[in-house]
Amino acid sequence: MTVRAGILGATGAVGQRLIQLLDPHPEFEIAALTASESSAGRPYREAAKWRIDVPIPDDVAELTVGRTDPDAVPDDVDIIFSSLPSSVGERVEPAFCEAGYVVSSNSSNARLDEDVPLTIPEVNPDHLDLIEVQRDRRGWEGALVKNPNCSTITMVPPLAAVDKAYGLDRVTVATLQAVSGAGYSGVTSMEIIDNALPHIGGEEKKMETESRKLLGTFDGAEVDWHGARVDASCNRIPTLDGHLENVWADTAGDATVEGVAAAMRQHPTLDLHSSPDQLVHVFEEPDRPQPRLDRNRENGMAVAVGGVQATDGGVQFNCLAHNTMRGAAGASVLNGELLLENGYV
Amino acid sequence: MTVRAGILGATGAVGQRLIQLLDPHPEFEIAALTASESSAGRPYREAAKWRIDVPIPDDVAELTVGRTDPDAVPDDVDIIFSSLPSSVGERVEPAFCEAGYVVSSNSSNARLDEDVPLTIPEVNPDHLDLIEVQRDRRGWEGALVKNPNCSTITMVPPLAAVDKAYGLDRVTVATLQAVSGAGYSGVTSMEIIDNALPHIGGEEKKMETESRKLLGTFDGAEVDWHGARVDASCNRIPTLDGHLENVWADTAGDATVEGVAAAMRQHPTLDLHSSPDQLVHVFEEPDRPQPRLDRNRENGMAVAVGGVQATDGGVQFNCLAHNTMRGAAGASVLNGELLLENGYV
Amino acid sequence: MTVRAGILGATGAVGQRLIQLLDPHPEFEIAALTASESSAGRPYREAAKWRIDVPIPDDVAELTVGRTDPDAVPDDVDIIFSSLPSSVGERVEPAFCEAGYVVSSNSSNARLDEDVPLTIPEVNPDHLDLIEVQRDRRGWEGALVKNPNCSTITMVPPLAAVDKAYGLDRVTVATLQAVSGAGYSGVTSMEIIDNALPHIGGEEKKMETESRKLLGTFDGAEVDWHGARVDASCNRIPTLDGHLENVWADTAGDATVEGVAAAMRQHPTLDLHSSPDQLVHVFEEPDRPQPRLDRNRENGMAVAVGGVQATDGGVQFNCLAHNTMRGAAGASVLNGELLLENGYV
Amino acid sequence: MTVRAGILGATGAVGQRLIQLLDPHPEFEIAALTASESSAGRPYREAAKWRIDVPIPDDVAELTVGRTDPDAVPDDVDIIFSSLPSSVGERVEPAFCEAGYVVSSNSSNARLDEDVPLTIPEVNPDHLDLIEVQRDRRGWEGALVKNPNCSTITMVPPLAAVDKAYGLDRVTVATLQAVSGAGYSGVTSMEIIDNALPHIGGEEKKMETESRKLLGTFDGAEVDWHGARVDASCNRIPTLDGHLENVWADTAGDATVEGVAAAMRQHPTLDLHSSPDQLVHVFEEPDRPQPRLDRNRENGMAVAVGGVQATDGGVQFNCLAHNTMRGAAGASVLNGELLLENGYV
Repeated sequence: MTVRAGILGATGAVGQRLIQLLDPHPEFEIAALTASESSAGRPYREAAKWRIDVPIPDDVAELTVGRTDPDAVPDDVDIIFSSLPSSVGERVEPAFCEAGYVVSSNSSNARLDEDVPLTIPEVNPDHLDLIEVQRDRRGWEGALVKNPNCSTITMVPPLAAVDKAYGLDRVTVATLQAVSGAGYSGVTSMEIIDNALPHIGGEEKKMETESRKLLGTFDGAEVDWHGARVDASCNRIPTLDGHLENVWADTAGDATVEGVAAAMRQHPTLDLHSSPDQLVHVFEEPDRPQPRLDRNRENGMAVAVGGVQATDGGVQFNCLAHNTMRGAAGASVLNGELLLENGYV
Repeated sequence: MTVRAGILGATGAVGQRLIQLLDPHPEFEIAALTASESSAGRPYREAAKWRIDVPIPDDVAELTVGRTDPDAVPDDVDIIFSSLPSSVGERVEPAFCEAGYVVSSNSSNARLDEDVPLTIPEVNPDHLDLIEVQRDRRGWEGALVKNPNCSTITMVPPLAAVDKAYGLDRVTVATLQAVSGAGYSGVTSMEIIDNALPHIGGEEKKMETESRKLLGTFDGAEVDWHGARVDASCNRIPTLDGHLENVWADTAGDATVEGVAAAMRQHPTLDLHSSPDQLVHVFEEPDRPQPRLDRNRENGMAVAVGGVQATDGGVQFNCLAHNTMRGAAGASVLNGELLLENGYV
Repeated sequence: MTVRAGILGATGAVGQRLIQLLDPHPEFEIAALTASESSAGRPYREAAKWRIDVPIPDDVAELTVGRTDPDAVPDDVDIIFSSLPSSVGERVEPAFCEAGYVVSSNSSNARLDEDVPLTIPEVNPDHLDLIEVQRDRRGWEGALVKNPNCSTITMVPPLAAVDKAYGLDRVTVATLQAVSGAGYSGVTSMEIIDNALPHIGGEEKKMETESRKLLGTFDGAEVDWHGARVDASCNRIPTLDGHLENVWADTAGDATVEGVAAAMRQHPTLDLHSSPDQLVHVFEEPDRPQPRLDRNRENGMAVAVGGVQATDGGVQFNCLAHNTMRGAAGASVLNGELLLENGYV
Repeated sequence: MTVRAGILGATGAVGQRLIQLLDPHPEFEIAALTASESSAGRPYREAAKWRIDVPIPDDVAELTVGRTDPDAVPDDVDIIFSSLPSSVGERVEPAFCEAGYVVSSNSSNARLDEDVPLTIPEVNPDHLDLIEVQRDRRGWEGALVKNPNCSTITMVPPLAAVDKAYGLDRVTVATLQAVSGAGYSGVTSMEIIDNALPHIGGEEKKMETESRKLLGTFDGAEVDWHGARVDASCNRIPTLDGHLENVWADTAGDATVEGVAAAMRQHPTLDLHSSPDQLVHVFEEPDRPQPRLDRNRENGMAVAVGGVQATDGGVQFNCLAHNTMRGAAGASVLNGELLLENGYV
């Protein structure tokens, strides 16, 4: 028995990845696709400009795209995967929750809301129970769960390992982000060929806040954010997929290269369908990870780390994850699997 | 009256830029070119694979390339510009100095030697007089002056301004460096298209040490290195020219965005031929500087800064310079102009 | 005394190049800028997203952008340079001509109209007098002159030389076109990084028709198109500027490599301000021309040719021109200079 | 029972692809790896700079690399896959054949030799029996079979379909080739970023001759080359994998778009392990095939065609194949499978 799933924002770059992941998924089946008004009523094949290097699944191609509205989605859909512009998500997602749908969302709205779980299943699965608080407070039959921003997801697993082993005081991070993170039309070719953009609007703030909520502790009533100071600087570079990040972490205890590498390698993973066998892959070679060579490890769901060095009072390393897989579509699907395992779906 | 100049390593990527700068230079004239044994004896036109987007100057094209040896350079050459692999520079540059030549070198050897001035003319011109110590100690009639590594040059001018205004305690820097910094064949296309490399061998160490020597104080006898802690992480990205850097600086005093911008804009420049009218250009737009749009400001000799933000106890900004102009060939030529103005040539 | 010029579509990629060329131009001065409704009324600095690697000229930056309408342009403007989407040009340009303005247009509408001169000044300057026919027929006081499409301009000068020397029977051409040819937002980064697009809508037809009109003969009344067969295939590749083309030409007479090279090198140029000293630069090196190295020859106004080879019954060569300079903005300005010299302005 | 296979030139770009294909292959097992002297004696893991985005197979990683010499390869190896520089292949491959090995080679030497079969299994499998002539003439116990150059392989399957349906008179082709075709270090980043190279040494000649041999007829004694005229122009562009080609074909009979598409789609495939289910995929969308989206169809073994148009007396189309899979390693493996099926191994 598979769970019937709807995808909001199904024609976008992340929406296409959601289809790629959910079509062969053993636990979910794609039952509804929604997009903007201009796409509604058309077969998906026509509505989407499909840009992945594997063809559209045949059955999905013929599905009719609906409006992004609870009324336009069949009642027997049990879970909603959402990847909408935040301004749309802000308006529409609560309506779906109110109508009884459980929503696993990649949209950036509401991630910091006190009663909305922001989860990376292998890092803070216990935060999921914030849903109880949410339902109490909002009177929803459904629920809203968020995954973090793609650049946040990349660094938090290795940082969680460092935090557990040594305690985090201060984090400084510079990102080298792929163009797919801005969506299919987000970065023009004239902006980025032979160039780099030293600013991604709102991204630095997301990394500085979401990471502290993710690393925070949940006592059953609220999430106490982690106290570490986090400073981020975000850059766009001419790569297609895979966010690479340089991280410096000041730690409470004395970190060693071996200790850090071991803590990362031993970070627990989960037995969910989309979880990687090993969450953090640590390279010994100083010139790894590299976006093109390492973004697809474990179907794009692993985080790769390299260049681990001890600093005065901390550690320095580089990390990489596939931004539209582990950092977006895969993150939402994994949250869906966690919701399923925990009986919320 | 122009000064006769020789170029060591004239066929390389920086050597070509030296020719581009020195050919029309009002104070210097190109009198000798040297390269590796395989090029010696051939006209420059044949020996070099010219890769700049302006043609080889006609007279330079016909010059015969000599061996990289003091005996192969005419005695009436008054200044030597050197851009050699460090293993060659280490061996050859002292021989030129001993033979009486004044050498302005971009090669990475000897930059940290106690009696070798490492100078950015607008930042620490007084260090040049370390030549007196050098001559005393080594018995040279000539002299050896170094410019720093391209990634160091990019950040030191703005950091010098911050240091003067507020005092520097700690610097963290991530670089996004262009492929030309590795020389014409340094990075293959298969390594870098749709990719980034999170490691440049030796580069981090150079940034951490050279910057502290440059910002140090010279008392007439020795350079007392600046005490700030410097942590660097160096990345190669698919851009042709222009190193972009994200910098965080913890300061002794409380920095404001306005104060930092003013200090940078007011940083003194010099009246040398290749000096920019304004050393540091500060952008208000958060998405600048960008390599392709801003690397050529003031003939590639200005440093561009943007994204200035106050942090808890310091300041964060991005900076950019043309790595083979301000960061290499232009840096050596500027040092040559400083040597000339100070009577060392 | 300079001629007062207006620019229609001044905020676009070609509009910015028009400003770059006209601001320092000795014969023209920029007196009016127009753009779409959303930009009208704002200073140019704000209305345009300036993307050239030299700053906006100060005086232009403060000009107020007007609506693209004859009523919104001062009467004392003597010439109009137009680079509008063809659907807009089709509607607006005749209105300007009717209102008495002489329009040198880069827009693709009306290029094949029987009474509209389509000119490359060094190739078919005599076609300009089609204006007389145009005025007779349309009753305009003004006039409309077109330059061809950027990919057409690249191949026609060398083909004109071959035609004159040997006679053209059949032309086959494949293009490798830069992204700037599609305008600032025309090609997204996700479409083109590590990719190529084997189709540019309408471009092949333009090359096949415009080239035959340009190479045709004008008898004072009408242009008799050249009878050669022309087949084109157009590709977009990840370069910023510079269209590279592979051309095969079957000739009536027996072509030799030397004869072809000589005919191209000797093709007449003009004494206009923007004309290159030599229209066609012919390389001996087989791996030239290359977009990055050769697009800026003679301020981007020369056409570069290489790889000339004799084939069975013809000749094969590669050619290159800067698509937004010689192929668009520079082409319009040059037509403006020709209009001026011929007394039409 | 699997056949034991040796790989000559195992550390190169094509050698790595051969390992990727042969390691999981049901009919072959990797029993020997050879490389240049400097690699011999080292485990493969150390000798190769592995650059594929999947890890080195564990068992291959520990194999010791041998010298490229028949004496250094175990006697029980039954087939040799060779991807050597042609100057090495020319010397070494005959020695292997003489020593009794059957060699399926991707190296460019000897492809046009009268008694050496040059085969694309789905196009001219019957040419394989030229081995009988070869053995007679050379007295070899082994045999030498070649696959064509990557740019030739891309166009020949669709041309074979056109030839069978309508007869080929004249072919003109322009290529847009990926950098991997030049090997790992063949194209530097400074040569190709924001650029294109209009020349690939020797490549045009290969396309013009190999295609005519492939499309020729074998009467049991010799191959009568196809009489069509072939003109090629080869360009390198900034893509990683996948050669795109614009083809014009003049045909004896009148070609229609539908007829051409049908002939291509119906071109026979084979039942070999690496053969695609459909040899030529024909797109209706005019902007396909594209390298990034279409190079991996059927594990990189299909040829994709699009943009089919009727011309005056022929047809025009675009085609694409993965140059290191279908165009090199996959081509050699497929020839190996054909050798096996035909009892030569």
